[in-house]
Amino acid sequence: MYDASQQFASDNYSGICPEAWAAMAEANQGHARAYGDDEWTARAADRFRQIFETDCEVFFAFNGTAANSLALASLCQSYHSVICSEAAHVETDECGAPEFFSNGSKLLVAQSPDGKLTTEAVRAIATKRQDIHFPKPRVVTLTQATEVGTVYRPDEVRAIADVCRELGLHLHMDGARFANACAFLGCTPAEMTWKAGVDVLCFGGTKNGMAVGEAIIFFNKALAEDFDYRCKQAGQLASKMRFLSAPWVGLLADDAWLRHARHANHCAQTLAARVADIPGVELMSPVEANGVFLQMPDAALEALQARGWRFYTFIGGSARFMCSWDTDLARVEALADDIRRVMDVEK
Amino acid sequence: MYDASQQFASDNYSGICPEAWAAMAEANQGHARAYGDDEWTARAADRFRQIFETDCEVFFAFNGTAANSLALASLCQSYHSVICSEAAHVETDECGAPEFFSNGSKLLVAQSPDGKLTTEAVRAIATKRQDIHFPKPRVVTLTQATEVGTVYRPDEVRAIADVCRELGLHLHMDGARFANACAFLGCTPAEMTWKAGVDVLCFGGTKNGMAVGEAIIFFNKALAEDFDYRCKQAGQLASKMRFLSAPWVGLLADDAWLRHARHANHCAQTLAARVADIPGVELMSPVEANGVFLQMPDAALEALQARGWRFYTFIGGSARFMCSWDTDLARVEALADDIRRVMDVEK
Amino acid sequence: MYDASQQFASDNYSGICPEAWAAMAEANQGHARAYGDDEWTARAADRFRQIFETDCEVFFAFNGTAANSLALASLCQSYHSVICSEAAHVETDECGAPEFFSNGSKLLVAQSPDGKLTTEAVRAIATKRQDIHFPKPRVVTLTQATEVGTVYRPDEVRAIADVCRELGLHLHMDGARFANACAFLGCTPAEMTWKAGVDVLCFGGTKNGMAVGEAIIFFNKALAEDFDYRCKQAGQLASKMRFLSAPWVGLLADDAWLRHARHANHCAQTLAARVADIPGVELMSPVEANGVFLQMPDAALEALQARGWRFYTFIGGSARFMCSWDTDLARVEALADDIRRVMDVEK
Amino acid sequence: MYDASQQFASDNYSGICPEAWAAMAEANQGHARAYGDDEWTARAADRFRQIFETDCEVFFAFNGTAANSLALASLCQSYHSVICSEAAHVETDECGAPEFFSNGSKLLVAQSPDGKLTTEAVRAIATKRQDIHFPKPRVVTLTQATEVGTVYRPDEVRAIADVCRELGLHLHMDGARFANACAFLGCTPAEMTWKAGVDVLCFGGTKNGMAVGEAIIFFNKALAEDFDYRCKQAGQLASKMRFLSAPWVGLLADDAWLRHARHANHCAQTLAARVADIPGVELMSPVEANGVFLQMPDAALEALQARGWRFYTFIGGSARFMCSWDTDLARVEALADDIRRVMDVEK
Repeated sequence: MYDASQQFASDNYSGICPEAWAAMAEANQGHARAYGDDEWTARAADRFRQIFETDCEVFFAFNGTAANSLALASLCQSYHSVICSEAAHVETDECGAPEFFSNGSKLLVAQSPDGKLTTEAVRAIATKRQDIHFPKPRVVTLTQATEVGTVYRPDEVRAIADVCRELGLHLHMDGARFANACAFLGCTPAEMTWKAGVDVLCFGGTKNGMAVGEAIIFFNKALAEDFDYRCKQAGQLASKMRFLSAPWVGLLADDAWLRHARHANHCAQTLAARVADIPGVELMSPVEANGVFLQMPDAALEALQARGWRFYTFIGGSARFMCSWDTDLARVEALADDIRRVMDVEK
Repeated sequence: MYDASQQFASDNYSGICPEAWAAMAEANQGHARAYGDDEWTARAADRFRQIFETDCEVFFAFNGTAANSLALASLCQSYHSVICSEAAHVETDECGAPEFFSNGSKLLVAQSPDGKLTTEAVRAIATKRQDIHFPKPRVVTLTQATEVGTVYRPDEVRAIADVCRELGLHLHMDGARFANACAFLGCTPAEMTWKAGVDVLCFGGTKNGMAVGEAIIFFNKALAEDFDYRCKQAGQLASKMRFLSAPWVGLLADDAWLRHARHANHCAQTLAARVADIPGVELMSPVEANGVFLQMPDAALEALQARGWRFYTFIGGSARFMCSWDTDLARVEALADDIRRVMDVEK
Repeated sequence: MYDASQQFASDNYSGICPEAWAAMAEANQGHARAYGDDEWTARAADRFRQIFETDCEVFFAFNGTAANSLALASLCQSYHSVICSEAAHVETDECGAPEFFSNGSKLLVAQSPDGKLTTEAVRAIATKRQDIHFPKPRVVTLTQATEVGTVYRPDEVRAIADVCRELGLHLHMDGARFANACAFLGCTPAEMTWKAGVDVLCFGGTKNGMAVGEAIIFFNKALAEDFDYRCKQAGQLASKMRFLSAPWVGLLADDAWLRHARHANHCAQTLAARVADIPGVELMSPVEANGVFLQMPDAALEALQARGWRFYTFIGGSARFMCSWDTDLARVEALADDIRRVMDVEK
Repeated sequence: MYDASQQFASDNYSGICPEAWAAMAEANQGHARAYGDDEWTARAADRFRQIFETDCEVFFAFNGTAANSLALASLCQSYHSVICSEAAHVETDECGAPEFFSNGSKLLVAQSPDGKLTTEAVRAIATKRQDIHFPKPRVVTLTQATEVGTVYRPDEVRAIADVCRELGLHLHMDGARFANACAFLGCTPAEMTWKAGVDVLCFGGTKNGMAVGEAIIFFNKALAEDFDYRCKQAGQLASKMRFLSAPWVGLLADDAWLRHARHANHCAQTLAARVADIPGVELMSPVEANGVFLQMPDAALEALQARGWRFYTFIGGSARFMCSWDTDLARVEALADDIRRVMDVEK
């Protein structure tokens, strides 16, 4: 018997949210033109333009790996390089996709204890090598929220964007959990992106309640030239595009996207609060989005797994617990209780 | 007001079939492990192995362009070439995706009046150049059913496979409309593929009633080495994979896939029959799958468009009418009636 | 015993001309800075700017395949396409190098009986497909002199350049035998290139008397942005660059390049003249550069080979005879005599 | 006036050695078949087989960046990774060429204080990630001699090769200064390569006295399948190949290659000996090949530059001095004297 009970290994374990589902059901009426020449796709793109309060170019891709890689490839040539945090998903979990899509662009990795790039790190890496024997820095990519659950403030983004402008670099934002970052900050999507100097944003839908699908949003429209060809050639143009775009219409209506993100964030904060007083359990980074990163003894983590919990662990005795749009607070409490129990045994 | 009435421009205009939808709904219960490590994906792969009566390797990709390109890239290196029909989708409608995914493999195009490669054409192209100044032929790709609505018989596939073995070529089948070909031939999927010498099949789900998704099936399992890495790197690994695989479980149960294909084929044959006696309307190729290709005066085609019909036209006065799993026979009759009407005016 | 006697198979069979050799010898004194930061490279680039009477950007690559591919890759993205003649070296003899360097750009091939593209062909191909399912035309490439020994007149280049400007295409010239074309036309290098609308020229040195090396000349300097990085990444930056650039200094001094080309052209014209009256031997295209293309019976070609002559043959009974900077007119006469002899037998 | 006096910035500053020059001169007699189908190329390949005492496959490329990248690309797919030292030329000085030629293979970098990989480092990196979200390790590359002038002993290579076999990795050796390593160790080329488990060696000719050219030697012949096509497509097939291969014939005769390497090594050891007693000058790594790496105060390095010396400096106050086949010992003494002088001032 398969166990479909909620886990905290990934926010990808969750399913499709009601708003996305309803939109898909509605879109599944009759025929529609293919390849994005349909009303749902137009509506979704328009909705993004409203939410971001600007006339941006919007494209849809199947997943985050492709969205990020296509965006980065449009910002640089094969002999250029991309500056990112050592924790960046593009570096650690996309199997070389950015290098593949760009035909060889190198990722230059900055140390970043809390998952965030700093202006100092960007400047140091961008200026370290200035000769043709090393790929020329051309792009900076930020993850918002970061892979360790922290969130860039708009002024932090702005500061990095200023360095980018000074050094001739484009600024890309990997927003796989952009909704969670927005929910945390309480600022507008515009304030966190183009108003802060972001050229291109990959806005994640999957972790926010969709089955599949990410939006690539060019605030710098000149950089979007022929991007539709790029998506097509790279196998990222859906023929029945309405099923990628309609869920966005559902999610973006009535702030469902923000509501879901707030809920996931709240679950994470609840988990962190419940374990805050347990001796031997340390929070590794501040809980600002929907992830909780805990330092715990290996034996305790194993005991937790033995109790049926699934989560990612890292070398050195730490674990990641991700909350989703659909996370049940009762499961959070149950997890917190079990963490307390396994730590009790440790004593 | 958007018009969702049925059209014949593409079988991609259709929506999600009930069986796929129901499976998605069922899959959307609770949490599931990501990236294909879930029960639905295992079930779908097993179901393919049952249907093909062999222990093949099964992978899932988002669309046909990616499925074909990934499969071809796994069969050759950048300095190899792929032999295909001049009508092949990989040549005419994938925006250079095969070249992109393979990092440069060249497509060698054979003339093929009825959309089919022949053993003679394969041999002629494969042996024309044997020097290192031209990409070395390494793969033959067939489309089944072809882009002009014809279907390879198993012995035709077998004959080409024999030439492939003799000349050291792999054999790939683009089965975007594989179901339609099976429905037409009445043979087993095994007879049309690995028993006839096919190494890899891309089995199309989108045109058969899914929202998104194709299966890549390696009968030659050695060729599938590390193919999961290839998919991941190329942005074709779904995080919530169950929503790509569950629809297959729905489609492949109770022969729904064949039933839908038979219906689409039947609609195409009905259309062809209804217009067979109209003077000035010529069938361009035999109707064996779900497409009808008609030669008609340009003025008649324009008159048909003026009556609200959507279809693809080709230089020289011809048009493609595609039927889908959901095509309403009444719409077929209406289309046939209108073709008769616009041709009456032509007289 | 190896036979080093002169042949007509390729102008690549010739060695290094005295002027190039002397410059290499002179360059081989003492130490020089690496990677092009030396005086010889500066002098060679300056000399090109003098000869072309404009402030162009000059780069050096090892061979013609790389020079063409790098230049084309700098003019388009992977989802773009390149329009060329069916006889173009980039299409027929570079083993997919343009596709490899560009990561997938497709070559769109125009029929061209005399090896030349026409404005009509360019326009037809460039406007045939305007949808994202097919690579977007972005570059036109001409070979000057062509692969069948003909030469574009400046006004022919200008006419094609005008179409390019109208349609948003860049214009590239593969000048593997640019010197031979200049020698034939008697016009200035500027008139044949940037004054006629060429954006980038690959100027061949190897066939003109160098051991190795081609120059890539950007008249449109904006297109040369970061081209030095592109060369380096693609393995085309010589560490001891002076040995690639010094021969150019030798060749370009005192019009040696033109003198050598004139000699090769003269040999070709002599060969053509000597066989003009032989029944059964037909000139396939006008002899304008250093190649003679003859239609002859297969048996005669075989008899010629039996007499020790090496040359390329083509399906349908034709052969290519190439003359070089060092071709001995006595060998031309001997070849012509043997052609007459083998044709006598045919009678 | 250009200064051609000897410098120590790079062993690439040197010219063509007499043996290579003489062979080129001899090869420059009459015509020869193109693209490697000539006697010189056959002789050079045979000579390599003699020297390595095995029936290896030999190819010639223009430079080391291309040779390494082509070799690595033949050992892995785009979704694989290559383990190398943090100092490896492929990582630090080839502008992303390995990523470009392989279409995205990632370099995984090991810390290596003395420039050498260790079995522990290889094992740790190769086993750190075993999931499809990260490129699968497939190749280990060693540089022999290393970029900091140290040399792997045959048993060190053997130990790494054993780990490679155990973990399913290929072993590549970047031998840009292979001759210097051989000269230092006094072992046979076979002992240092295939007898120690190396699959493919890139043997550097440029730094050993050639104008241009590297040899790629496959001891594991199965890995060389279609490698000639790979070279051609990547723009690395010389048309007048004899001028790449003849210099090898010259260099490899009468142990000229070893003699030159021994001389360069001797010069380096002499320099190290001369400065060994200077207070404040520290040797950063043992002098085993032709490079001397010195830690010195920044002010002293600047003073040295002011006296006309050219050399590479690194952040943190260190400098590289490279000796060549043609280095004049008097220049070494003069350099040592000036180092002593500038350090005197420092006191």
